[in-house]
Amino acid sequence: MIQYEPWKISCEGRENPKLLENIFSQANGYLGSRCAFYIDGAKNHERCNYLAGGFEYISPGVTDMVNLPDLFHFQLFLGTGDYLSFSQSLDMHNGLFERRSVWKDQEGRETQINISRFISMDNKHVSALSLEVTALNYSGDVTVIMGIDGNTVNLPVDDDQTKENLDTVSLLSVSETETGENYCFLKADSKASGRLQVAITARMVQSKGTAKDASVTGCPAKELNFPLAEGEMVRIEKILYTEAVIKDPEAASEGSQTLPKVGQDLYPHVINHSFEELLKNSEVAWRSHWEQADIQVTQKGNGSFVQSALRYNIFQLIQNCPYGNSTVSIGARGLTHGRYKGCCFWDTDIFLLPFYLFTDPQAARDLILFRLNTLPDAKKNAKALNLPGARYPWMCSIGGIEQCQSWDIGRCEIHITADVAYAVENYLEFSGDETLMRRSAQLYVETARYWAGRFSYDQRKDVYNLLFVKGPDEYCGVSGNNAYTVLLARNNFKLALEAVQRKEAEAGAEEMKKWQDIIEKSQVEYDSDRYLYIQDDNFLRLEEFPGKKAEDGSASYHQYDFDWLQRYQVIKQADLVLLMVLKPELFTAQQKTAIWDFYEPLTLHDSSLSFGIHAWAAAYLGLEQKSCDYFDKSLFLDLEDRMKNTGREGIHLAAVGATWQAVVFGFAGLSLGKDGKPKLSPRLPKDWEHLSFHFFIKGKRYLAVIDEKGGRIETEEKKKG
Amino acid sequence: MIQYEPWKISCEGRENPKLLENIFSQANGYLGSRCAFYIDGAKNHERCNYLAGGFEYISPGVTDMVNLPDLFHFQLFLGTGDYLSFSQSLDMHNGLFERRSVWKDQEGRETQINISRFISMDNKHVSALSLEVTALNYSGDVTVIMGIDGNTVNLPVDDDQTKENLDTVSLLSVSETETGENYCFLKADSKASGRLQVAITARMVQSKGTAKDASVTGCPAKELNFPLAEGEMVRIEKILYTEAVIKDPEAASEGSQTLPKVGQDLYPHVINHSFEELLKNSEVAWRSHWEQADIQVTQKGNGSFVQSALRYNIFQLIQNCPYGNSTVSIGARGLTHGRYKGCCFWDTDIFLLPFYLFTDPQAARDLILFRLNTLPDAKKNAKALNLPGARYPWMCSIGGIEQCQSWDIGRCEIHITADVAYAVENYLEFSGDETLMRRSAQLYVETARYWAGRFSYDQRKDVYNLLFVKGPDEYCGVSGNNAYTVLLARNNFKLALEAVQRKEAEAGAEEMKKWQDIIEKSQVEYDSDRYLYIQDDNFLRLEEFPGKKAEDGSASYHQYDFDWLQRYQVIKQADLVLLMVLKPELFTAQQKTAIWDFYEPLTLHDSSLSFGIHAWAAAYLGLEQKSCDYFDKSLFLDLEDRMKNTGREGIHLAAVGATWQAVVFGFAGLSLGKDGKPKLSPRLPKDWEHLSFHFFIKGKRYLAVIDEKGGRIETEEKKKG
Repeated sequence: MIQYEPWKISCEGRENPKLLENIFSQANGYLGSRCAFYIDGAKNHERCNYLAGGFEYISPGVTDMVNLPDLFHFQLFLGTGDYLSFSQSLDMHNGLFERRSVWKDQEGRETQINISRFISMDNKHVSALSLEVTALNYSGDVTVIMGIDGNTVNLPVDDDQTKENLDTVSLLSVSETETGENYCFLKADSKASGRLQVAITARMVQSKGTAKDASVTGCPAKELNFPLAEGEMVRIEKILYTEAVIKDPEAASEGSQTLPKVGQDLYPHVINHSFEELLKNSEVAWRSHWEQADIQVTQKGNGSFVQSALRYNIFQLIQNCPYGNSTVSIGARGLTHGRYKGCCFWDTDIFLLPFYLFTDPQAARDLILFRLNTLPDAKKNAKALNLPGARYPWMCSIGGIEQCQSWDIGRCEIHITADVAYAVENYLEFSGDETLMRRSAQLYVETARYWAGRFSYDQRKDVYNLLFVKGPDEYCGVSGNNAYTVLLARNNFKLALEAVQRKEAEAGAEEMKKWQDIIEKSQVEYDSDRYLYIQDDNFLRLEEFPGKKAEDGSASYHQYDFDWLQRYQVIKQADLVLLMVLKPELFTAQQKTAIWDFYEPLTLHDSSLSFGIHAWAAAYLGLEQKSCDYFDKSLFLDLEDRMKNTGREGIHLAAVGATWQAVVFGFAGLSLGKDGKPKLSPRLPKDWEHLSFHFFIKGKRYLAVIDEKGGRIETEEKKKG
Repeated sequence: MIQYEPWKISCEGRENPKLLENIFSQANGYLGSRCAFYIDGAKNHERCNYLAGGFEYISPGVTDMVNLPDLFHFQLFLGTGDYLSFSQSLDMHNGLFERRSVWKDQEGRETQINISRFISMDNKHVSALSLEVTALNYSGDVTVIMGIDGNTVNLPVDDDQTKENLDTVSLLSVSETETGENYCFLKADSKASGRLQVAITARMVQSKGTAKDASVTGCPAKELNFPLAEGEMVRIEKILYTEAVIKDPEAASEGSQTLPKVGQDLYPHVINHSFEELLKNSEVAWRSHWEQADIQVTQKGNGSFVQSALRYNIFQLIQNCPYGNSTVSIGARGLTHGRYKGCCFWDTDIFLLPFYLFTDPQAARDLILFRLNTLPDAKKNAKALNLPGARYPWMCSIGGIEQCQSWDIGRCEIHITADVAYAVENYLEFSGDETLMRRSAQLYVETARYWAGRFSYDQRKDVYNLLFVKGPDEYCGVSGNNAYTVLLARNNFKLALEAVQRKEAEAGAEEMKKWQDIIEKSQVEYDSDRYLYIQDDNFLRLEEFPGKKAEDGSASYHQYDFDWLQRYQVIKQADLVLLMVLKPELFTAQQKTAIWDFYEPLTLHDSSLSFGIHAWAAAYLGLEQKSCDYFDKSLFLDLEDRMKNTGREGIHLAAVGATWQAVVFGFAGLSLGKDGKPKLSPRLPKDWEHLSFHFFIKGKRYLAVIDEKGGRIETEEKKKG
């Protein structure tokens, strides 16, 4: 369905509109907007705009990501009819979305409607839309209503993966509206706590015709009228400026931030620039991102599928990162959808961070700072469960307070805490950033304290068990001694011990002895005959899986209950296979092969987090065909809707991050050699002739090139970020 | 606080009003009403009336027990002031509640206000209130508004034991109201599905004064005015008739039932009888219940605490049973509170059924019929979890569809299915009812099929494990091979196999072989050195409990999270101790002592289901002091608010049922001898001189008497029911 060009994706037609409104989502890390504007009504579309960190409470302690007033609201009155043609494209150079369509009404009048939109990468507050209307075969009056629609609502999507929540809730209250000669202004506050305030100004300029006020409650708007001669075109530009204040109600100190109360005073931004000029500025900003993050691939026979789709994946990573803001992280669907109430998961630490770490260390630093800043909340989470230290939340939104409400996942999927420690370790190692050493050490110590309280000592056997735990494989139920979790928790203890030994943090001798003790006496089942690590205490007691994955690729938990799935040797997503690539030093070559050979055939890949990791692991193990197959699934996961849920859920950013890792760590085999220098272990797919990308390590910029001559790394003496 | 007389409980003063409104709750098994009417506003009270089976959906598939229009609504206008005196009593002979109070206003005027109320045990539709107002030291006009208030709401209480839901939701819509010369009429439908329709007529007769219409939206009412001379009294009687239609939207066949549309036509019931006359009828009906169910206890020194409190416990069992209705069961709090959304649990099968089975076999039959009738729903529950056979719901309301939404309890606390099979076994054994044999056999077979799908076969060891299971001890987390569940599941298989062998039901040879195989190869950990059954796979791996129960007796899950509690050797409530008394034949004497000695000290009794069972088990084991201590806690659990939650949650009917079992099975030691005849093994508390009660076995009525001469059973040749 999608057409792929090196810097552009495009699509003819309107089939699967919910998928397309995700695919063409746009963002700049601050503001995100789904591509859900239609002239024939908004049925079955999710007309959503989001702000990074723009959360509000929907019940005590539980937040949702607020659906903003609709910035891009317009109505075009052309009479009943249908599209004769409809094509959309996204230019990844500059983030420009374009839609060209022809509408034919019942009386045969044909109107060309071209829409262009971008969200500025240059100035995070700026976005712009242009609408061109051409009367193709008639003369007549055309009317457009254009404004800012504050009557938007939220769908507070449940955490439960199998439940669909169709309730709507109104989280905003419009406090001011204003219309001027050629602008609209709207200000809204989030209702429950007032923590989010947003002010939006839209300047609308039309090439001809008249304008009058057409505001309705909560929606300041102008009605634009223009007579068109046959073949004549009118162009309307809508330049938007969005400003928000996000106050933490617990942190009264931020009270100094206030928003403008009146639209006209304050927005020279929207007055002095045209669509084209602002787009040029944005393109310059995009260019500097691409200079750091682009990956060039040449396929045999000049195919550009891979090049285009890979750029699309990187495009999503760039546009969903809240640059310069360490008070928020990246939600599982970024700014493309409210799924999981916009919350951030381990997806950021394990799946997304590496991309930023190697292409934009400052962005990675902010993501790490988010975890460091929320250490006090992580301590509250631990305390709420009667535990010492710091427990990172499975889901979080505002700060680091646990947002996941389900028992099996919210209470039991505790590897997140070790994942965060691992991410910090990873960051420090590759960034060389020494300024966060001490704070990181504190995080290691507090998370080690949590783990020490979370393991259970079995006196009879002098061992430590990690009970009531769920691993990355969410089909394992609530089990004991999940190997992924135990091994990463051991790593967490090791990081804490080393940090204390380096005097970056303090800890008591007694507790350190216990940490060491748990490293040595924690339990992971291991079958020495097969060199095989066993996923958890239950795994070998389970029966062979008698089910079958749905042919359309959708997740099995839609056809089988989790309660049933957990009793079979069937795996939702990479678990030990993931650990094997994250921490290859923990396993011998034999053990790695054993893990792959045993678990890979049992894995259903019912999480979007699975394919890219399997591609990486297969490449690592030299299994070329497997790595290509898995890579294809990860690369096109959203673009080709491989899991049949992109339309419903938005862009799967973790899969996007895993795709990137499959290329850089899997195919290129980038790692640090024993000499501390980066090295490549190229294992490109057969039909790739050339792969090259830039990356940063410890503030130095390198260029990796792999071609028929093999792989080589060139140094560029350029400072980071 | 409570004063105890043999047939009456009473209380001076108004301290702890929420507790008192539960203690004095009244019901007749069809209609229940909390005792929450006050003349000084309804702050902090739960003004609730419930109908057995009166559920409505609050979200798709999820029900709540509807709070009816307030039948007993009245307002008495006496000016600001306070009570000079306030005393309440409940006569257990006839269910009459009386409140005598004196109100003194700011100008010194004192008014005596006496309220009497009963809900008829004779005619389930009838209830009545009388209000007597006396001007003690003044002359003046007094005004009362009296009517039926349809503006009531629900508090849809969460399943989660630790979460309090303070949302309110309006489930009813008033469709008709009418006021006549001396009556009000109200009709309301439940909003979501319309399955519940209720019509209420109230006739109000006053001994003097005038009346006028004082209806407001949703609340038909009369304003009654009367001039009182000093010392003069006016009496107002309110006679109520409540009729309801409960339609199952899926069973359109019940459409023939309709309710009256007009009040006046239809209620000779409320016109032809006085309060006193209706009360007399009710008393006759109560008398026949007491003839079957009373237990007489004589304590040394003429103390009547035990006699009175025991009658109170029996009173609750009588008044909350939906006599003659096998389409509903008894909720965990009966008709006294909406806790757990009014749902029915294993409480009915294990804790309540024995009382009815031995004192009112027809009532027991209806409770068993409820489970037999909901076998098709139990099959739906199994199917929803991809399992064969029938899975009884942890919580149910309308029919037998699972209402519990939490993972750890709703999916894992599966012993309920074996509990139901056990209850049916128990019923058939003691009732001698042969008419339900075949349907029961079908239940045994379908539940056995469920269990066969639920156990996991471990090929390596040739054993069956029951994984991901939570036992009666809800502090055990999600564990494996919970002994209570595995042993009762084996019993379930045995019942099915025997039923098929007796040709009461059919099953395939293959599946029967598997059932036998699971009986033999299912796993329960057993420590043969200590003769000790281990509660589950994890129990011996847990650490010693470092916490402490709160001194006020409230449950520990309020101070410690379940996530923490599950990692220690600490028990919420009787688990193996319960199984030991339910199925004593499964254990040797040594094993029983081992169970008690090991688990009893680890038990926090954080469920009201625990004390009575421990009293019974201690009596069984001859531990007199322990049995008395536990009995005291169970007997007075609600009356003295031993768990500090009766005010918040209503009457704990399972504790009430366990209290009864502690007396009959524990102290009296009633059981069937090897000759098939009932026998006693008396082990009375030291200060009990006499204990006697009637009971039914296999349709025969017996009298058990225990006194200084020992125990004896006398036969009464009277047919059951």
